Amino acid sequence: MTGFAPLTPPPRLLMGPGPINCYPRVLSAMSTQLVGQYDPVMTGYMNETMALYRTLFNTKNQQTMLIDGTSRAGIEAVLVSAIEPGDKVLVPIFGRFGHLLAEIAERADAEVHTIEVPWGEVFKPEQIEAAIKKVQPKLLAIVQGDTSTTMFQPLEDIGAICEANDVLFYCDATASVGGNPLEVDKWKLDAVSVGLQKCLGGPSGSAPITMSQKFVDVVRTRHHVEAGIRDAHHESARGPKIRSNYFDLGMIMDYWGDERLNHHTEAATMLYCARECAILHLEEGQQNVIARHKVAGDAMLAGVQALGLTPFGDLANKMSNVVGVVIPDGVHGEQVREDLLLRFNIEIGTSFGPLKGKIWRIGTMGYNARQDAVLHTLQSLETVLRKQGMSLPAGAGVDAALAVYSGAMNV
Amino acid sequence: MTGFAPLTPPPRLLMGPGPINCYPRVLSAMSTQLVGQYDPVMTGYMNETMALYRTLFNTKNQQTMLIDGTSRAGIEAVLVSAIEPGDKVLVPIFGRFGHLLAEIAERADAEVHTIEVPWGEVFKPEQIEAAIKKVQPKLLAIVQGDTSTTMFQPLEDIGAICEANDVLFYCDATASVGGNPLEVDKWKLDAVSVGLQKCLGGPSGSAPITMSQKFVDVVRTRHHVEAGIRDAHHESARGPKIRSNYFDLGMIMDYWGDERLNHHTEAATMLYCARECAILHLEEGQQNVIARHKVAGDAMLAGVQALGLTPFGDLANKMSNVVGVVIPDGVHGEQVREDLLLRFNIEIGTSFGPLKGKIWRIGTMGYNARQDAVLHTLQSLETVLRKQGMSLPAGAGVDAALAVYSGAMNV
Repeated sequence: MTGFAPLTPPPRLLMGPGPINCYPRVLSAMSTQLVGQYDPVMTGYMNETMALYRTLFNTKNQQTMLIDGTSRAGIEAVLVSAIEPGDKVLVPIFGRFGHLLAEIAERADAEVHTIEVPWGEVFKPEQIEAAIKKVQPKLLAIVQGDTSTTMFQPLEDIGAICEANDVLFYCDATASVGGNPLEVDKWKLDAVSVGLQKCLGGPSGSAPITMSQKFVDVVRTRHHVEAGIRDAHHESARGPKIRSNYFDLGMIMDYWGDERLNHHTEAATMLYCARECAILHLEEGQQNVIARHKVAGDAMLAGVQALGLTPFGDLANKMSNVVGVVIPDGVHGEQVREDLLLRFNIEIGTSFGPLKGKIWRIGTMGYNARQDAVLHTLQSLETVLRKQGMSLPAGAGVDAALAVYSGAMNV
Repeated sequence: MTGFAPLTPPPRLLMGPGPINCYPRVLSAMSTQLVGQYDPVMTGYMNETMALYRTLFNTKNQQTMLIDGTSRAGIEAVLVSAIEPGDKVLVPIFGRFGHLLAEIAERADAEVHTIEVPWGEVFKPEQIEAAIKKVQPKLLAIVQGDTSTTMFQPLEDIGAICEANDVLFYCDATASVGGNPLEVDKWKLDAVSVGLQKCLGGPSGSAPITMSQKFVDVVRTRHHVEAGIRDAHHESARGPKIRSNYFDLGMIMDYWGDERLNHHTEAATMLYCARECAILHLEEGQQNVIARHKVAGDAMLAGVQALGLTPFGDLANKMSNVVGVVIPDGVHGEQVREDLLLRFNIEIGTSFGPLKGKIWRIGTMGYNARQDAVLHTLQSLETVLRKQGMSLPAGAGVDAALAVYSGAMNV
């Protein structure tokens, strides 16, 4: 069988809501040859990866590891391992990914309760507290940053509310992690799952998670060891089985823990990748990376505003790393995206659900939270919009972005 | 945070039951920069990957794609998408991975029926037919090659039995694919899942699957579109929801199909990898790769026998790509493995369950199904066993392997 060319994708600049371009060092890490899954070198890398993500998550949680799958694999592992059929789960929804949390919890046969705000807004702690008191859920599941709306949900005050009401506090921080603050212990989070393909500058395919002892204790009420590897000293089962083998966090903890009890075969390349993403993040310094995302996001926002475009949603609660831009009347949104992609090799994002066809989403994430990436994108957007017949203040977008960078030259 | 060295793993020669060393071109492919998930270049790569695995699986099945996870993610996707609670599933078990199929089906609340043969044997078609007639299952789930025992289950005659009894025929061919024959259409298989980390010469982390139209029709009775991305033209749901969102093959088909309906974000690096694994396999030629595994496996078998060691199990039904070797009396099995690893950088495998501590498992898979790899392993094993006090015919293992290669010089 012939006719399949080598991989030579065009050099896209990925300025959408993710995935984005990988850091070059992450790409190099992924071409590293394998070692066996129980090789002391490999288990050493696994332990290092746990330590790196503890630091990245700002947690002391022992149970910090990778789920082998995309970010929604991490979500499903957390939810299906915590939820028994009939358990009450509260999901505050402020965008597409809130719906996803509710959907995954429903499939686990939770009794799912949702509260919603319009797309473009977030919740006040009082709204969540009132719903918790009314529903009395076992678990609160919420997204930190929802790329579908670009909104960022403050979490600082929710942990105390959950603790006071004996509710497990879970957050999907896939879209926000790395580019925005995330203080797992300080904010009293019981479980967090993320992905690599946003501000951490890797590809999709590995989902770092962390679990508090309180969360682990819940998972451990449903202990199970597979028949094919069970020894005499293993208790075979305790409590109702978690419905998924692949996402059974008890078994995954036993695989990452001292016993190294066989479960899946760790996706070594994606572990190499996740490890390198975290090293890059911590070498640069968490606060520095967050600041770099802030200035890139501010510059992109200032740029699109200076071009006369309208950003979407409540800007006081926007993620640093993505901005929604209202598609102006008379402009063909998809034609603009296609011109950017095919003429300039720049990708910006479309939208889902109620925002479909109404906004573009422009990201400044990970490796691409860079001045040159912001400037090229604004210049190219201006050119493409002018081609669509719009009258725009020439160079205003780039000038506004440069001004933001001039006021923050150290970033 | 400092102190994390760059990835410089030792150059292990992985001669266990998998994972094994990646083909160099596969490693290179994984360092390729990303494009966006709906970029025509990316959807082109996705379509190419589907076509490549159709050829590799010897099928015309349209629904041939990747599950983003390790090989057991592919197993779980197939089982949880086909099984409704209470459905009868028959699992013939001849090793650890048969137990795994039963375990995953149980967690999906199937009524699981098992038949077993001792580890080291496989089933005769009559045994499976008798069980099918007795149980009348909806689905038969069986492993083709079980690395826990090294056994290879012939499948040629089982498809007709399943068809005659209106049973869906699913096979996990993770350990055997690429190194042994697999004729999906000819053998009337309805679903097959595999992994990359054995004879296909990639890392763990992507699970190619294929589904017949009959299987697809079963999955499609449980259609669902996520709330956050549902448009007016979408029917929201039909039939009982599949219990997993991540493994909902209906949604995964919609993502890989013409509608490109958003589900997970495809793990692009692992897709690059899976694509390259298939290209390498098909460029070399399926029959040539199978023959290369056959001679490497024969040479390794002849080598260990010439050293006076006893192979495990029914040799008439051994997979080409792995041999079990009974650990001789008086030899410390784990010490041998450690010496091989730390002195010779060669990894061979330990065992599970009833075979734990009783056999080593030595693989000759993918990139490592090579004459030099076989010879180095036999030489090193001889040296290490002699160090343990065994008396061995000097050089006999290597000589026997060389003789096998001399008789098959074109491979």
